[in-house]
Amino acid sequence: MARTRLTPEREAELYAAVLDLLREVGYDALTMDAVATRTHSSKATLYRQWGSKPELVARALRHDKPVQFLEIDTGSLRGDFHAMIARTDDCQMEKDSALMRGLFHAVHDNPELNQALRELLVEPEITGLEMLLERAVARGEVDADNPALSYVPHMLVGAVVARQLIEGRSVDRGFLTDYLDAVVLPTLGV
Amino acid sequence: MARTRLTPEREAELYAAVLDLLREVGYDALTMDAVATRTHSSKATLYRQWGSKPELVARALRHDKPVQFLEIDTGSLRGDFHAMIARTDDCQMEKDSALMRGLFHAVHDNPELNQALRELLVEPEITGLEMLLERAVARGEVDADNPALSYVPHMLVGAVVARQLIEGRSVDRGFLTDYLDAVVLPTLGV
Repeated sequence: MARTRLTPEREAELYAAVLDLLREVGYDALTMDAVATRTHSSKATLYRQWGSKPELVARALRHDKPVQFLEIDTGSLRGDFHAMIARTDDCQMEKDSALMRGLFHAVHDNPELNQALRELLVEPEITGLEMLLERAVARGEVDADNPALSYVPHMLVGAVVARQLIEGRSVDRGFLTDYLDAVVLPTLGV
Repeated sequence: MARTRLTPEREAELYAAVLDLLREVGYDALTMDAVATRTHSSKATLYRQWGSKPELVARALRHDKPVQFLEIDTGSLRGDFHAMIARTDDCQMEKDSALMRGLFHAVHDNPELNQALRELLVEPEITGLEMLLERAVARGEVDADNPALSYVPHMLVGAVVARQLIEGRSVDRGFLTDYLDAVVLPTLGV
């Protein structure tokens, strides 16, 4: 497989450069030319390794943010949520917000990118979140019929995006902790 | 004042064209040239009337979506929220989502647009929402100390954005009604 020709270090370096560009200029303005220039590689190499821009971007996103929720199991839902927050520092949250801003328009207009993102990034995250919630239901912390269970991803994504739109600021740990305690946990009856 | 030289009909036509372009190409790719071409006007006219692209875009947004919450007063918070939803049809919600996608990246990178948007669009909407909530508190429906009160805008914006990101679909009345009943109203203790 062509991808094995790059060392893992070189691959990580390339993905980091793609994400930096995405934060700076957004998806539409990110060109394979710009990636080639920034990473001192040839466009032919990029296309041979990743096939297309959406595929390269999706791989870069996936590499940057492995699913970490699966390892979390503190014994309470509140504890699990707080552990999630503790794993991400404020600087990382600002970088994640910048990525979301860079991708939001593109995801809607580009079915290939949308598909890649959903498979590589959205669905694994939601699966991780669902496991936390299923354990809370199994422990009896959350009622299995609670209609808010399916909206937890919406509440969390909403907090991140809305703070930017409404308050003009990126989320940080303090805000997310408050939001969890004021909104998410009470909705779930915790 | 220079702005009075356009008839209200012509002004409305121009604003509608600006919003269509914004949905199609996003803020960054929207040029005064494109607006001039689409509306059969000269760039000189556009700059004389509005001064700058952020100002024109902000005016267009404000014209399209007057604050309607202020007139709503059904006597219960659930009734007020449902009246809000009933005022917007699904097609309008899809158009609003497209606008938000077109603006999300730009708002962060462009302080002038951010400022105009906040004054013209975000703050009046939030004021309208706060009035609904204050009446609910005054009626005794919601506890004045409920920490979720300040997060209602986040929950609502979140629903719209997250449905797109997570489910790949725009919000519609059915979804918003469900979300209000499952998340927003229970959080407020209603």
